[in-house]
Amino acid sequence: MYQLTDSIYTTNSWNIKNKKVDKDQIINNGSIFLIGNGYMGYRGTLAEWNFDQYVGCFITDTYDKADNKWKELCNAPNPLYTKLKIGGESLSVFNNEIREHNVQLDLRHGVFKRSTVLKTKDNIEVQIESERFASLANLHLLPMKYSIFADKACNVKIKTGIDGRVWDLHGKHLEKYKTFEEDGLLSVQTFTKEKGIELDVVTKRIFPEDIKFNYTLNKTHNSIYEVLEFNIKKGEKFTFYNIASIYSSNDVEKPLKNARVNCEESYVTSYINLKKENNKLWDELWKDIDIKIQNDPINQTALRFNLYQNIIATPMHSQKLPIGARGLSCQAYQGAAFWDQEIFNLPMYLFTRPEIAKNLLIYRFNTLGGAKDKAIKLGYEGAFYAWISGKTGQELCPSYFFKDVLSGREIHNHFNDWQIHVSPDIAYTVWYYYKVTGDFKFIIDYGAEIIFEVARFLYSHSYYKMDKGRFEFIRLLGPDEYHENIDNNAYTNYLSKSVLEIAIKIYYKMNRENKKKLERIMDRIDLKEKEIIDWEKMKENLYLPEINNKNKLIEQFDGYFDYEDTTPHILKKRLLDPDEYWGWPNGVAVETQVIKQADVIQLFCINNAFDRSVMEKNYEYYEARTQHGSSLSPSAYAIIAAKVGLKGEAFDFFKDSLFIDLDNKNKSISGGTFIGGIHTAACGAAWQIVVKGFAGMEILSGGILFKPHIPKRWESFTFKIKYMDQKFRVQINHKNIIINSLKNNDHFVYFTISDQRYKVNTGSSKIIDYRKDERQVKEWSNADGGKKQ
Amino acid sequence: MYQLTDSIYTTNSWNIKNKKVDKDQIINNGSIFLIGNGYMGYRGTLAEWNFDQYVGCFITDTYDKADNKWKELCNAPNPLYTKLKIGGESLSVFNNEIREHNVQLDLRHGVFKRSTVLKTKDNIEVQIESERFASLANLHLLPMKYSIFADKACNVKIKTGIDGRVWDLHGKHLEKYKTFEEDGLLSVQTFTKEKGIELDVVTKRIFPEDIKFNYTLNKTHNSIYEVLEFNIKKGEKFTFYNIASIYSSNDVEKPLKNARVNCEESYVTSYINLKKENNKLWDELWKDIDIKIQNDPINQTALRFNLYQNIIATPMHSQKLPIGARGLSCQAYQGAAFWDQEIFNLPMYLFTRPEIAKNLLIYRFNTLGGAKDKAIKLGYEGAFYAWISGKTGQELCPSYFFKDVLSGREIHNHFNDWQIHVSPDIAYTVWYYYKVTGDFKFIIDYGAEIIFEVARFLYSHSYYKMDKGRFEFIRLLGPDEYHENIDNNAYTNYLSKSVLEIAIKIYYKMNRENKKKLERIMDRIDLKEKEIIDWEKMKENLYLPEINNKNKLIEQFDGYFDYEDTTPHILKKRLLDPDEYWGWPNGVAVETQVIKQADVIQLFCINNAFDRSVMEKNYEYYEARTQHGSSLSPSAYAIIAAKVGLKGEAFDFFKDSLFIDLDNKNKSISGGTFIGGIHTAACGAAWQIVVKGFAGMEILSGGILFKPHIPKRWESFTFKIKYMDQKFRVQINHKNIIINSLKNNDHFVYFTISDQRYKVNTGSSKIIDYRKDERQVKEWSNADGGKKQ
Repeated sequence: MYQLTDSIYTTNSWNIKNKKVDKDQIINNGSIFLIGNGYMGYRGTLAEWNFDQYVGCFITDTYDKADNKWKELCNAPNPLYTKLKIGGESLSVFNNEIREHNVQLDLRHGVFKRSTVLKTKDNIEVQIESERFASLANLHLLPMKYSIFADKACNVKIKTGIDGRVWDLHGKHLEKYKTFEEDGLLSVQTFTKEKGIELDVVTKRIFPEDIKFNYTLNKTHNSIYEVLEFNIKKGEKFTFYNIASIYSSNDVEKPLKNARVNCEESYVTSYINLKKENNKLWDELWKDIDIKIQNDPINQTALRFNLYQNIIATPMHSQKLPIGARGLSCQAYQGAAFWDQEIFNLPMYLFTRPEIAKNLLIYRFNTLGGAKDKAIKLGYEGAFYAWISGKTGQELCPSYFFKDVLSGREIHNHFNDWQIHVSPDIAYTVWYYYKVTGDFKFIIDYGAEIIFEVARFLYSHSYYKMDKGRFEFIRLLGPDEYHENIDNNAYTNYLSKSVLEIAIKIYYKMNRENKKKLERIMDRIDLKEKEIIDWEKMKENLYLPEINNKNKLIEQFDGYFDYEDTTPHILKKRLLDPDEYWGWPNGVAVETQVIKQADVIQLFCINNAFDRSVMEKNYEYYEARTQHGSSLSPSAYAIIAAKVGLKGEAFDFFKDSLFIDLDNKNKSISGGTFIGGIHTAACGAAWQIVVKGFAGMEILSGGILFKPHIPKRWESFTFKIKYMDQKFRVQINHKNIIINSLKNNDHFVYFTISDQRYKVNTGSSKIIDYRKDERQVKEWSNADGGKKQ
Repeated sequence: MYQLTDSIYTTNSWNIKNKKVDKDQIINNGSIFLIGNGYMGYRGTLAEWNFDQYVGCFITDTYDKADNKWKELCNAPNPLYTKLKIGGESLSVFNNEIREHNVQLDLRHGVFKRSTVLKTKDNIEVQIESERFASLANLHLLPMKYSIFADKACNVKIKTGIDGRVWDLHGKHLEKYKTFEEDGLLSVQTFTKEKGIELDVVTKRIFPEDIKFNYTLNKTHNSIYEVLEFNIKKGEKFTFYNIASIYSSNDVEKPLKNARVNCEESYVTSYINLKKENNKLWDELWKDIDIKIQNDPINQTALRFNLYQNIIATPMHSQKLPIGARGLSCQAYQGAAFWDQEIFNLPMYLFTRPEIAKNLLIYRFNTLGGAKDKAIKLGYEGAFYAWISGKTGQELCPSYFFKDVLSGREIHNHFNDWQIHVSPDIAYTVWYYYKVTGDFKFIIDYGAEIIFEVARFLYSHSYYKMDKGRFEFIRLLGPDEYHENIDNNAYTNYLSKSVLEIAIKIYYKMNRENKKKLERIMDRIDLKEKEIIDWEKMKENLYLPEINNKNKLIEQFDGYFDYEDTTPHILKKRLLDPDEYWGWPNGVAVETQVIKQADVIQLFCINNAFDRSVMEKNYEYYEARTQHGSSLSPSAYAIIAAKVGLKGEAFDFFKDSLFIDLDNKNKSISGGTFIGGIHTAACGAAWQIVVKGFAGMEILSGGILFKPHIPKRWESFTFKIKYMDQKFRVQINHKNIIINSLKNNDHFVYFTISDQRYKVNTGSSKIIDYRKDERQVKEWSNADGGKKQ
């Protein structure tokens, strides 16, 4: 047993467990013990709970606006609700004496288990056991097993069914409830208020045949329950199964019918077999995605927890849906995608299950319409991707995101109109996908159009400064969100230049190799050759905040260094209210050098063209000024700390990042807005810290570079990567890197280690002592591929 | 007797009077009853008062920072202090019964008079009479006459001298006081804290020789008094004269000596003669500046009050000093110049005393260094004039001007870095001066350099939008200060285009006519021919917010019309604190169409190229949304209302503007900052409302246009103007305009009335019926002079 946090431990590095019922932690544990499959996320709550304990089952693709508030995913009526009475006494972990309580999440197969022994007033000890999973094999299916057992003979009353009393963040989304029983199935049919999306929940409960019980059906306007009353003997175990299915009219035309059929068909398969089907797919996923650490069970578990959360947040089944910033753990951030998706969540898939990365990028292709609408609306051309992107790609980010807690007035934040880097983030990732997979067909079919439209947007957003002879970006927010209304953000400008290079490169490559297809794209999006010339001019003359010759620092944006140089610690003392937003327009950080999160450092995670000394100096400078008020921050610092050889700091930030949710360090409320739930970006970043940070992986123009910095405490770590459709297992210890080309590979790949290039043939292995040389190999990982200093 | 306000009345349209001692009005009346001469401003307080009653004598050219707060003008020790005891009882208007009280300001000669009858506890009625003026003939001189008179024999104790207990807004400016008596002169020598400017006050009191008194000298660290004790008989009048003189080391090398000599020399001249010298100069000023209104004594008086305040605010004697936004009435706005100087204060002089206008513009020439420093500091080229400009032209405007009264935090306003229009305002006025005077020598000696440097600044500030093929101005504040961080402000963009045209025009004119002098300027400021080509490109392609074809509206800035359309009245209800600042960053007006003051309408006051229908539609639209939170606002609306023929509204705004200080409608505190005192811009604008509004004067390329809209109530109004060194008296009644070319003129001038051009010869008059034709004559008044539609 290894304790991960005060209340969470693991027994085998594949599970997390919790023994306490801590009222204050219910909202966090609901997220931490989440099960899901990318279609639904079911919070880690107990079967007898309701909205008071933040019960939620969030369904993908159900974006809807409730009561004219924010558009967000809907929470389905809870089909697993089960409440127990013993001898007429309603059992509750809050009121009854708890003799034993165990909650467990099996990360390997996404199974939630609960076991509680409660003592009644009559001194009966009752054990409740339940288990549930959101099937990876059947995404609409939510099976549960529920047992009770008492140490004395007693009367039992179980109320179980579909409970409408679920948690909603911004108003009630569902209306027109229809609750009914038919053919042994309980159903709740309902519709969303704004769009009228039908969202139906059907459940079938399989009760044991050997126990006789009184049966009643109990209905309210939004719930339907079966109530069973019976007597059990001492030591007799009562177990029932519950097969629930959820469909929306965005999934199928007839959601109710589908849910019913799904339930009936699944019911025929036994619970055990449903679980087997689920487990098999999980086993296959982990085979590709798992990272094994020798000698560090706590961080091994936390790492798997993060990978797990990244997996269940991802709509792997779809090319039309995004990864929510909080996955499917709650409605915060509207269940929709930020730049997090490409920069934080996606790389794990890109190197392990590139087809999932592709799906996510096709989602961006499918939402080009929304991005183009947004651009037009704001006076630009091309694709300005939504800061918060749901299904259609229309901007979901409210203009008034936070509140001034001192005055109670809403704050007009400019995430949705000034934070433009999301567009180059996506375009860059499209190209990154190609660099890793070699899948130029994807570029032709989808990527080119995204990249062209983004280049077009960047051009139309830029200003040319005649007197300085350069293009600039004016009035931005960079990744560091505490500084709005800034010019020439290093991250945005460097990245935009890369994207312009990529766009030009694709244009000329297609012009040579796929001329007709290029013409078709140009025709479709009305792209003129002159625009490519414009992009070339802009690429040549786009202002990039320079590396200062003396101190090697890159200024985060124009004038940043002129701001008050202080620390997050000092700023905290200036708060008049702990919930104050630190940023725009007059939060405590606005006119200081204190930043919310990695910005220049984030740039280094994406662009490998910077010298180690530059990374090191900037790391030192910015880290001291970073509040890490964003869950996106520690991972970037971890990666760059590792890359510059600060192993201890890298490991500390790695742990910080891994434990963001487990420790619940990040606050749930900022500027009056709930922002809790699972920080899926950090979950995705966990993979990157290990592979890009500790293994030091960079993609070169024709191969892969590793420059390991293994944490001291680890004996070794092992992960898999897929590159150009070839799978490799990579193991790194304190001396060697061992690269295995797996069986089914069909061609060799070059690996660069310590400045030396190694050819690793199909099915073979290479053991390379990476300590030989500490010199650096520099290369662009994005546009050009050519060596640059 | 005509009542101007509740408490202020006039007896002859040349004075204002007040009979009440109202504690709440002391601060306002101190400003209203101000005397001054452009060198000093002495507040309208009683001789026995001190800082508690906001006593102040503000001295020009003494900008200094106190206690590390704001740089502002200094308040000299008060040399007129005189306190009375009768029978041991200290007399006070607050404690004694007031039998009679009269305070009067003689506007014609700038003389303050006071007469008070107080009753002592012993039932003695004591009359105090005093009179003072700040000499226009001897700017350092502040003579006073003081008498007492009692209805019973009594013992009198008079304490009179230089009192250091004066009002300071932001900390104590003076230190190292030296107080002494020598040769019958009392002196206080003192130094400013920051710059060590020596500021000395010397006073000589001339007591009557026929009354015997006990004499004591009384000194504190910052004050020196003479104390006289004597008995007077019933009905006996005791009068003394006080000749005070004030000098600073910025005036002369030895201020103390100069003050002493000045005192001694003036003392030889009798008080009566000093007054005569003063009155004579005033009479001459009024001969040129006065506007006579037939049949409206109240507004006649108020108008004269405004002209008077504009006069005493102006450092007419200097080419190195500005007009403060509050003149010399207090330290608010730091005693320094805003754009108000050129756009509001100066035109009155330009058409009556152009040499004073010239001085003010030479001040801008002399502060080019400060403007260029500011430009460099903010990353621009050329001259970016200070938003608040003292002697050196260095920026005095604090970055943190207002306070968020809800949180107590300072607000970072951007008056000093984003409100760029001050530079084109000045450059435009330089050209305007030339258009009215024909003084091209001034352009060669001073104006060209100002205009070139401003054009240079505008070019370096602008951005070129490649995709739209146009220059833009980004991140501005226009005249309407509630909207910061806006793009393409109509006022700024139109005006800037005019200035570019002017710069180009001057360049080519000098290139033809004054090539060597042009070369010398170009050499001195390192101006390249290429820059003129750049300006031409910019002029051609500078984006101007268009007149909407349908509704004729001009958008105040990009996106203005998208803001919430509401009214000042509604916004007022949203205030959480009455002192809240309405503007940046999150005041109630920021995201609405409510504006603080005229902006597009102000543009029409400067640029005559807009059709009447355009002015009319915009007037209607913007007026409904204007809070008139600035004293600069009503005058612009008055002028444009008059120009479009809305006589009633024009007259209402005229009165609003005239009574801004008399009525004390504008609040003294906004966002925690004292902004009271005399609104000199409105005072200067009063002249413009009459001449540009009611007379409809516009300057054409070769002459003057009048298009009168006389207020209904007036029989006629008469004013003088000087144009091309020719003086004219213009009288307008409801039918005719009568133009008299005065005696000493030496050439004819063309006047355009109702689309017809009239030649008015030297010494002749023309009576023209202006009602014939209501058609408009359009012409640019600034750069081009050519007719434009």
